[in-house]
Amino acid sequence: MDSDVLHIPAQEMLNVFTSILVKHGFPVEKALQCATIFTDSSIDGIYSHGVNRFPTFVDYVAKGHVLPAAEPSLKNAMGSIEQWEGNLGPGPLNAMMATHRAIGLARSSGIGCVALSNTNHWMRGGSYGWQAARGGCVFIGFTNTIANMPAWGAKDARLGNNPLVLAIPYQDEAIVLDMAMSQYSFGAMELARLKNTMLEVDGGFDANGNPTRDPGVIIDTRRTMPVGFWKGAGLALLLDMLAALLSGGLSTHEINKNAVEYGLSQVFIAIDLSRLGDSSIINKTIESILDDYKSSVLVESGRKVIYPGQRVLETRKANTIKGIPVQRRIWERVVML
Amino acid sequence: MDSDVLHIPAQEMLNVFTSILVKHGFPVEKALQCATIFTDSSIDGIYSHGVNRFPTFVDYVAKGHVLPAAEPSLKNAMGSIEQWEGNLGPGPLNAMMATHRAIGLARSSGIGCVALSNTNHWMRGGSYGWQAARGGCVFIGFTNTIANMPAWGAKDARLGNNPLVLAIPYQDEAIVLDMAMSQYSFGAMELARLKNTMLEVDGGFDANGNPTRDPGVIIDTRRTMPVGFWKGAGLALLLDMLAALLSGGLSTHEINKNAVEYGLSQVFIAIDLSRLGDSSIINKTIESILDDYKSSVLVESGRKVIYPGQRVLETRKANTIKGIPVQRRIWERVVML
Repeated sequence: MDSDVLHIPAQEMLNVFTSILVKHGFPVEKALQCATIFTDSSIDGIYSHGVNRFPTFVDYVAKGHVLPAAEPSLKNAMGSIEQWEGNLGPGPLNAMMATHRAIGLARSSGIGCVALSNTNHWMRGGSYGWQAARGGCVFIGFTNTIANMPAWGAKDARLGNNPLVLAIPYQDEAIVLDMAMSQYSFGAMELARLKNTMLEVDGGFDANGNPTRDPGVIIDTRRTMPVGFWKGAGLALLLDMLAALLSGGLSTHEINKNAVEYGLSQVFIAIDLSRLGDSSIINKTIESILDDYKSSVLVESGRKVIYPGQRVLETRKANTIKGIPVQRRIWERVVML
Repeated sequence: MDSDVLHIPAQEMLNVFTSILVKHGFPVEKALQCATIFTDSSIDGIYSHGVNRFPTFVDYVAKGHVLPAAEPSLKNAMGSIEQWEGNLGPGPLNAMMATHRAIGLARSSGIGCVALSNTNHWMRGGSYGWQAARGGCVFIGFTNTIANMPAWGAKDARLGNNPLVLAIPYQDEAIVLDMAMSQYSFGAMELARLKNTMLEVDGGFDANGNPTRDPGVIIDTRRTMPVGFWKGAGLALLLDMLAALLSGGLSTHEINKNAVEYGLSQVFIAIDLSRLGDSSIINKTIESILDDYKSSVLVESGRKVIYPGQRVLETRKANTIKGIPVQRRIWERVVML
């Protein structure tokens, strides 16, 4: 099996992505920025929204759902909130700009909020958590999606799994939680299907509305299980409402009228942590929380208790040294784009 | 059984609570405010943090954990963020003040954040969501708690179930989500134990760390099941970190050193929705989302799909007309306080 996996050096991946994006109409600087986001997600081990997703992203550009040269434009500014129109530009670039603006607002008034309408899939939500954390800010962000999750007590998918991202700067790194409101992301389920394994807990529903652990069945029905059953369904509903209201953009049921997912609504909130205390005190507070957390009594010896973002650091280190592992068939598809 | 349930008119409950609080050292105005919060929660059907919790609250006052006359004080103000010291005052009053300040900051700059240290249990988190929504604001708030939930893969409780509240003004009412990071609140589990029923899904762990639906067992172990397993555990960890960092207050592992729960950290974020659009447009957006949501295909006919806060409105109406249903033994305990 291992011969089916290539190890691509990050610089090579970046170059390949950049030239493909230029070929598909991205201005050079935008191509480089966008390629960097896809490469960084791959280095961090989030392949589902990095290299594995790149062909779909390029396909959306080719089909005109993502406009490679479009720039977001300011619709409305009032104090520490701004509303931006995404103009169907590349989701990762729009989200990066929105995060940048939220950080700027937080620098000037402690907290800032940017709401973005008519944008596209931001790929890995954690990217913007890391970006804000590197800027010394706490991050709270979320996006809506097409419908892929039923309301509690319902059979058909009318909710998005609307990922929520929380990030906190920590030492030179960050604690980053990036969670969809479905128990499993589609990326995780595709991986399980590829490996022919069942999910650890019920991940969604079959065509009859019965819970199932079979990832292939759930990918087909597109009916994912909400995190915490009724609770995650409620949270997904509220996140969609907030995204649509704050941005003045589309909600999941409107996005769902299109055959593919575009024209999303997103929210980016940053809080300047440097205003609230010395960074050494902040790091100490986090460290003491993590120390207690890690000293948990384990269910099985040998198993580890990990915190959100911890695995990313380990993968980043390994992939930087050994290259980014990519399925041969995927990489062959990428270089042909 | 029904003879064991009394129906107390809201005004009577308010009067009884107020005079008890005055007897226990609350200044009259504070007694009335605090009694109003407990009564309103009971009218809304959140008995676990209303009338059923009132005796414990008074007990905490009697033991000196909650200081009835204490006022919160401003520690730090920078732009749209303020840090307040709760001075161990009554949790609901501190939280109400913090929400009021967050609304004020949102009025002047679109978004406002108040972080509160050294406060007490805010009782029903939804109260502050309703408060912000009545002020025309979106609300995002959370609190930490004592440890009552294990990390994923751990046996012992080191996380709080750290409730998260999201609220959105809607017509003259609100959409309010008030969710602890445990699958069930202790209030819900106590109710199930009282009724001698099993929980619908695994709600926590027994003494051996095995998942269980037995509410009594979980109340004894104090090891609740995180919403969405590893996901809710991660979210609880981040909410605790944020609450402690933003407020400069205690985190769950520090609170847990005390035998009882006091000295909590809380965060209150308000966004002035009136700045972002006409209220009729906002109501229309929400209505169209709810219309789509309610048109879900149901798993069982006759069952309803409900949105967060919907049941509250129905209960509020019924309890206003018929009086607030209270277990006779609880009301007898209350009037003796």
